[in-house]
Formats: sequence, structure tokens, C-alpha cells
Amino acid sequence: MLVKSKIKYIQSLGQKKFRDETGVFIAEGPKIVKELLNAGPALVQEVYALPEWITENQHLLKHTLTEEITGAELQKISQLKTPNKVLALAGQFTHEQMEVKGRLTLALCGIQDPGNLGTIIRIADWFGITQVVCSEDSADLYNPKVIQSTMGSIARVRVYYSNLADLIGDPAGVPVYATVLDGQDVSKIEKPGQGILLIGNESKGIPPELLQRASVRITIPKKGGAESLNAAVAAGIILSHLT
Amino acid sequence: MLVKSKIKYIQSLGQKKFRDETGVFIAEGPKIVKELLNAGPALVQEVYALPEWITENQHLLKHTLTEEITGAELQKISQLKTPNKVLALAGQFTHEQMEVKGRLTLALCGIQDPGNLGTIIRIADWFGITQVVCSEDSADLYNPKVIQSTMGSIARVRVYYSNLADLIGDPAGVPVYATVLDGQDVSKIEKPGQGILLIGNESKGIPPELLQRASVRITIPKKGGAESLNAAVAAGIILSHLT
Repeated sequence: MLVKSKIKYIQSLGQKKFRDETGVFIAEGPKIVKELLNAGPALVQEVYALPEWITENQHLLKHTLTEEITGAELQKISQLKTPNKVLALAGQFTHEQMEVKGRLTLALCGIQDPGNLGTIIRIADWFGITQVVCSEDSADLYNPKVIQSTMGSIARVRVYYSNLADLIGDPAGVPVYATVLDGQDVSKIEKPGQGILLIGNESKGIPPELLQRASVRITIPKKGGAESLNAAVAAGIILSHLT
Repeated sequence: MLVKSKIKYIQSLGQKKFRDETGVFIAEGPKIVKELLNAGPALVQEVYALPEWITENQHLLKHTLTEEITGAELQKISQLKTPNKVLALAGQFTHEQMEVKGRLTLALCGIQDPGNLGTIIRIADWFGITQVVCSEDSADLYNPKVIQSTMGSIARVRVYYSNLADLIGDPAGVPVYATVLDGQDVSKIEKPGQGILLIGNESKGIPPELLQRASVRITIPKKGGAESLNAAVAAGIILSHLT
């Protein structure tokens, strides 16, 4: 049975302040919890699950503190409207230092919507991009909505937060591609072996101080009437052409 | 001042049953309302807006019944968490009969999420696709969340609901492209002048009875670990290569 203090602790992790203090985040649902357990058991600190889920997944849980709970208890600790069998507490990632040479890095300028951020991480994972860097005003990676919408890709993509102007201002750096409305057709650009791909905030685009440091401006040619594309959709299209 | 019966009527349009009965839908926010007014004033039946929005947009409202309301009244009739200056009631579209020859048509198999459906309509609009057909089990086009996420593209893209098996089963028809996990690389397919592009439901993909009638199976090559792409992202990538 879940004690009150534990319920309160897990609920508090819905807030960034407590996630930052504890270094812990919530992951929910069979898919994401399994991906995290497979990524390395050390990452997952505790699993709270319905009895049938525990029975089915014994092989994954050998080294993980696991507590059997009821549906009513899961409802209490879940951040989802419809809780889904299992909730895990995991330690926030500590990645080796970011290295931009020799690979493609996706750099996100102020993506505010948690669902968009998670979807972009999932897209990066699909295209084999293992490094994403967010400007400091982006949504929090450990927001439960971000974690959910990565659909498990959070376990495979390293996500950093950094001052993007400092990152792309490095004179020994790699080419920087900026997605704008009046650049070169992305389908005609040679696939780069390394570089930083800047994706702008949907309403404000890429900030001028970053745009002026871009080496190549690229565009997804528009043939109809829509004014813009969703940031995640744009990221998907860019990566499908450049990887 | 808004009378009670009017408030009740507008609120009822949040439900499909009442939208179907009346043939009316709700559009909210300056961007979408302006797009609808520009698309043809006959479409918009009534506009409810804050005084400042009416003053700024007099030129658009000459032939449209307009009622000035307060913020509190807007709150009552709005479907949004944060109402945005203006709400319009518009008549549902009546389009000429669908014609699949000589153009590209996007065909959606059971897209359930209203945000996804709206985003796909917006993507179609960006790529100049003016015809989208949804299977009968798809989300309702006039769901306020669909309307919002089209960002105004609803005014430019004709959306139909149809039995997709009947549509693509027509022997005198056009090529049918199906997006699957093991088809030809979409970046290597010749751009078709006409055809139907099938986009599957995210969890179930394209139903077998449709898949067996497809002439070309295409794939967005996967280079990393993610199991799937969001349906709207997949649609964007496919259209960026095939238009």
C-alpha cells in the first residue's frame, strides 16, 4: 500500500521546482517505462504498477524496486487523465559533454509546447539524431507531457539546455543551418555530415542574433496558403531531407 | 447583450450532434475568423467579438451580422481555455463533388486525434493540396479543436468523408500511395502528377483492405530507434517529397 507521504512526493514531481530539487522525473505507461528499463536499470529508481503488469514484466524488474499498487492508487499518483498500468520514478539524465563535431545536432529555439518538444525528440530519434540542444527558455524536458510525447525516445536521445548563441558562436564550429521562410529549397541542399540545425519557435521563428550566425538558410517550399508549419512537422521534414 | 438562449445555442455547438443538426460550427480567434471572412462572407453567419476587435476589423464585417460582447460573455460561449477576442458561427462547407483525377488527394485512415487532423489539413494547405478525404471513423472536421489547429487552412482545403475502400477501389482510378514501414524510400519516388496518398492511423496504420489496393508502398526510412512517427509529421514528410 502506498503511504501518504509517498503519494505526496510523487504528486510533487509534477512541478519543475521539485523535479529540479530531487533530480527525479515521472514516466508513465508500459511503453515508456519499458524503454527506460531497457536503457539501463540504474536510471529507473522505483516502479509502481498494477499486479498484472508486474507479472508480465518480471524479467525487466529483477534489479528494480517495484511496488504493486491498485488502480485507485495509480489514479492518485498519475499525471495522466487515463493512467496506464505503470508509473516509474527515474533519475534525470547526466550526459557526457556535448560534442557538435562529426554529427548532426538539432538546436531548438524556445519550443514552449511540451507536446511539440517531446514529438521533436521522437522525430530526432527516428532519423538517428542522438543530440538535441534546447535554448534555455524552452519547455522542461522532464515535464510529464514532454516525457509522454517522446514515446520512449527520451531513453535514446541526449537532450541539453544551453545558450544557443554561445554554442553556434564558436569559431571552430560546424556549419549552422537555419530554417527560414526565404532560404534555399531544403530538397536541393547537400546532406551535411555534421552541423547544427536550428528550428525556430513557431510564432517568433529563430531569434535574429542566432540567424545572423547561420551559414546556410533553408526553406521548406510553400505551394499553398498556410502561413506556417508546426515546429515538429518542420523539424521532421528538414531531417528527412538532410539525413 | 447576449441572451441566455443564444449562449445555450452556441455552447451546444461544442457537440457533434448539434453541429450535425444545425449545419453550423464555431471558429475562434482573430486568425481563423479573418480567414473565414476572407474566404467568402456568406460562410460566416454571425460574429461575436470584443469592441476593440470590431473597431479594428470594420472593413471585414460590412456584410456580417456582428454582436459586440464583453470578455465575460466571450468566456461563456468560448470552447477555449483562453478565449481570444472573437468567436464566429459559420455554416458547414458544401463542396463540389470530389474529383481525384489530375491532382493529389490526401486520404486519412481513422485519424482520431482532433489536433492531428487539424494539423494535417494545415500541412496539406502548405503543400498546395486542396483535397483531403477522411475515412468515416475519423475525427469530426467541425470539432472546435480541429478547426483551431487548422490555423485557418480549413478555409482553403476541401475535406470530405467517405468510404476509402470504395474510393480507391474504382478501377478507372489514379495511383494509390500507401505509407508503410517496409516500402520504397519516399525520397526516391518520382513526384506523381495525380494520385491518392493514404496516411494510416498512428497505432493501427492502414487497414489491410486498403493496403492491398495500393499501387505503390512508400516508407520514410528510419535510421534510429523510434518505433513510429506522429501521423501529421509523416504526412508532412511524404508531401514534402511528393509535391
